[in-house]
Amino acid sequence: VVPRGSHRPAPSRPLWVLGADIGGTKIVAGLVDPAGAVRARHRREVPSDRDPEGVLRATADCLAACRAEAPEAPRAIGVGVAGQVEPGTGTVRYAPNLRWRDVPLGSRLGELSGLPVAVANDVRTITLGEWRFGEGRGCRNLLCLFVGTGIGGGAVIDGRLAEGAAHALGEVGHTPLVADGRPCHCPNRGCLEAYVGGWAIAERVRELAAREPAARGLIARAGGIDRIEPRTVELAAREGDPFASAFVHERAEEFATGLVGLVNAFNPERVVVGGKIVEGFPEYLAAARRAVAERCQPPAAAAEIRGSRLHADAGILGAAHLARELFAARRRLR
Amino acid sequence: VVPRGSHRPAPSRPLWVLGADIGGTKIVAGLVDPAGAVRARHRREVPSDRDPEGVLRATADCLAACRAEAPEAPRAIGVGVAGQVEPGTGTVRYAPNLRWRDVPLGSRLGELSGLPVAVANDVRTITLGEWRFGEGRGCRNLLCLFVGTGIGGGAVIDGRLAEGAAHALGEVGHTPLVADGRPCHCPNRGCLEAYVGGWAIAERVRELAAREPAARGLIARAGGIDRIEPRTVELAAREGDPFASAFVHERAEEFATGLVGLVNAFNPERVVVGGKIVEGFPEYLAAARRAVAERCQPPAAAAEIRGSRLHADAGILGAAHLARELFAARRRLR
Repeated sequence: VVPRGSHRPAPSRPLWVLGADIGGTKIVAGLVDPAGAVRARHRREVPSDRDPEGVLRATADCLAACRAEAPEAPRAIGVGVAGQVEPGTGTVRYAPNLRWRDVPLGSRLGELSGLPVAVANDVRTITLGEWRFGEGRGCRNLLCLFVGTGIGGGAVIDGRLAEGAAHALGEVGHTPLVADGRPCHCPNRGCLEAYVGGWAIAERVRELAAREPAARGLIARAGGIDRIEPRTVELAAREGDPFASAFVHERAEEFATGLVGLVNAFNPERVVVGGKIVEGFPEYLAAARRAVAERCQPPAAAAEIRGSRLHADAGILGAAHLARELFAARRRLR
Repeated sequence: VVPRGSHRPAPSRPLWVLGADIGGTKIVAGLVDPAGAVRARHRREVPSDRDPEGVLRATADCLAACRAEAPEAPRAIGVGVAGQVEPGTGTVRYAPNLRWRDVPLGSRLGELSGLPVAVANDVRTITLGEWRFGEGRGCRNLLCLFVGTGIGGGAVIDGRLAEGAAHALGEVGHTPLVADGRPCHCPNRGCLEAYVGGWAIAERVRELAAREPAARGLIARAGGIDRIEPRTVELAAREGDPFASAFVHERAEEFATGLVGLVNAFNPERVVVGGKIVEGFPEYLAAARRAVAERCQPPAAAAEIRGSRLHADAGILGAAHLARELFAARRRLR
């Protein structure tokens, strides 16, 4: 129940609100004060069967824990969820990670909490959080990329959070890096995500380790080829393991090449890059800065590349911002 | 002198206006009636030295020829130009094809014509023309691609012509198709334009022809390898030449792969594709339709792909639309 065409600065009201982020494995929620600071945080595991009613109750419980710490009653709830959301109703049409179809998340959470609830896709709430409260503050044209298990993104274009035909503008992980290349988890091959996202890193480092004698140290550290994870590579690279360092360097260059194309296409003034892979591999940011400055078209090359500093709070703050906007919009209607 | 943040439907006034498109080699201008139909067209060659004053005079002359045919006095001029334009002043900051820097196109044309003049980048006027009068009519989210010597593009996002930080949003020709691939005319390698745009087609077909016995027919038709042009390939393919047909088919598949990524990233409801390469190689459209439907992410895969039918009139109509908006904005200020 996000009012369409909103996302303009909400009139500043001294409102306390709640923001939550429902991912495939965990739920985080926060209490956000009128100045936009997160004043309490709670988290819950997503029940392993991912049953909608169980996830809804866990989310309501997590929000209630935040609410209990509020010095003043929160007036609205915002939720980001990893799926396609119908903004008018807050219904989750399709959430592959949660294996949901047509879950009325907004209306059920409204019943459980007694508060108005705004729901949006999590990448959109995170982009909103970075734009309003994070490294994207003040930009009229911002591109956000989040490199975790997959790669997601969102964009602010000419001063508004961009939606696209199906609220999916910014799916930057599924632009080609290598035509006809490695199979992706999407219906295509050769996508950026299939080269430098978390699942691809795990897959590729194991493939390489199986035939590279230099990977012995990494394999030993992980306790077997199939146990090598992005985090193992990160730790090994930090300690100077040459195989891991070279691997990270190559992925960073691939990421940078993809980013050059996205910056040419979107012409943002700034790019904010976040997610656990970028946090683990700061080489991604360094390579991206160099590549954008040297290899973008002249007008696009001026884009500034920054790492997210809000981390998990971006989703809470963006969702809380939606909550604030929803409350303001309802008040205007009265 | 385009008012910022405009491009919303201009109030319909019974205005006659003039639209022009200044390319690297030719100038076209048209007289546009109050209903948005092109009622007269004229063209001039760009003087071979590309001297700004000479191009300005040729443009003014071309516009004057259209104006002479108007049943009622045109009230404003719109111009699209292949370069970076400062919208507030109508000054062309940089136009590589014309070898211009800092040419006050808007103010000089205003002096020569005595009319208000709006200036924008030609890809933006063409996108505006397709959106308001062509195959993009009625869309809130539209991506336009023009495949000529190079590849350019523009986008309508959430109901507005998108600008980006430097009015360059939509430079879709410089997204990667093959990381580290063929050198491009931009500072990068492996761009879509370097594989399937007009100059790349000429370069690649000549490279292939030099080593492929099957290309003998094509070489004979062109009168030498270095005289093979995209148009030669087109004609040979139309007549069933197997080498030319296979070549076109492969380029169409590459184009389609690039388009899949762009449709994922921009999530348009429709894509309009134009330019002389697409007009010559309709395989580009067929391959794009198939690939988008089969290989895009589910929400993006619904995008409809259409070929431009306005051709050169898109630029005239888009520029005329800007003229109309400028006139309306000035009237509101009075």
